[in-house]
Amino acid sequence: MRKEKISSAVIRRLPRYYRFVDNLYYDGVTRISSQALGKALGFTASQIRQDLSRFGEFGQQGYGYSVEKLRNEIAGILGMYRGHKCIIVGAGNLGRALIRNFTFDKYGFTLVAAFDLDPEVLGTEIQGVPVYHVGELEEWVTRIRPDVAVLTTPRSVASRTANRLVAAGVQGIWNFTNIELKLDHPEKVVVENVHFADSLLSLSYYIAEDERPDPRAPEDKD
Amino acid sequence: MRKEKISSAVIRRLPRYYRFVDNLYYDGVTRISSQALGKALGFTASQIRQDLSRFGEFGQQGYGYSVEKLRNEIAGILGMYRGHKCIIVGAGNLGRALIRNFTFDKYGFTLVAAFDLDPEVLGTEIQGVPVYHVGELEEWVTRIRPDVAVLTTPRSVASRTANRLVAAGVQGIWNFTNIELKLDHPEKVVVENVHFADSLLSLSYYIAEDERPDPRAPEDKD
Repeated sequence: MRKEKISSAVIRRLPRYYRFVDNLYYDGVTRISSQALGKALGFTASQIRQDLSRFGEFGQQGYGYSVEKLRNEIAGILGMYRGHKCIIVGAGNLGRALIRNFTFDKYGFTLVAAFDLDPEVLGTEIQGVPVYHVGELEEWVTRIRPDVAVLTTPRSVASRTANRLVAAGVQGIWNFTNIELKLDHPEKVVVENVHFADSLLSLSYYIAEDERPDPRAPEDKD
Repeated sequence: MRKEKISSAVIRRLPRYYRFVDNLYYDGVTRISSQALGKALGFTASQIRQDLSRFGEFGQQGYGYSVEKLRNEIAGILGMYRGHKCIIVGAGNLGRALIRNFTFDKYGFTLVAAFDLDPEVLGTEIQGVPVYHVGELEEWVTRIRPDVAVLTTPRSVASRTANRLVAAGVQGIWNFTNIELKLDHPEKVVVENVHFADSLLSLSYYIAEDERPDPRAPEDKD
């Protein structure tokens, strides 16, 4: 399916394509042109065609894309059918908010366990997810073999916890701690940092300038 | 200071510049070249020079940029010295996590009030932030005049709450509800959606492909 090494920029755009096309799918839309897709997402039609052509031929000249096919293909490319398992380390407010409200399964992830220190939550289940002691992390990781760990610990223990996770074999860390993790073996893991502040600062700019973001370029068009 | 209309793409990159330069500043670094800045951020030196030149002349040929000056100029451009006020609507797990852990003041925002329905939290303070009844939203917005509202309500009431906020005069909405808000007057407000899932899906891709993101292009380089 993949013809060439895909740039990070394209990978970054795919989740947005997915989000949009998934909504169309659930709204009952069956076909969409690259023009309409581009207009909605703030890219040119040729950019869209170029992005999607890297993964194979989805479209049909003059007929646009099948929404269902596009949705399923993008989901496949993004690894959403691989049955990824994840754990969450840190069941404080943010961890609990994610467990309760984030639809992991919608994105192909099964959340199998949470870890914390707080005696109040240990041994309980949050939304059906069991909470274990963080001291047993390595043991559980060896047993469960999660692909990804969601990191929602306090900052002070974030890097140490991340290194334990990598040593135990976790392949990906979804980092919500707002710090740059100091990893012993950065080559062994993929880290995705969630930077809340970036979007707040963009908002801050647009308000200060009393300007509106260009609606044709909602996120990253140049 | 501004010479031309700045594209959304540049505005999106500025918070990342800021984050990086702010860290340098606190690490005691005084000067940085556009090459080094580019390398760290995954852009070319000429891209960096081009981005920053839109806001005036920061650099000095052959001497690089003054870290402190760059940091403060970017902060200024992003509106961080404007004394923005914000409120948070929805003091559930996510709302509480943001109140307790997100350093609003670091980004030039003062969080002045929270709103909820839960009798358990009404009338209390979370980290010094008073929690009022969401029924009194308009009254407080008129009194406090917040620039931004952080939206952490349940999804079912997200659009309705957003419309109330806009009608009451809020200029910006930082939307954590994971839904596309249906606004009566989209032209009256800037909305920044926080899409957690996008970075999880990138992570999912890289794990599925057993690939690492190109370290020279960590976020959006083409």
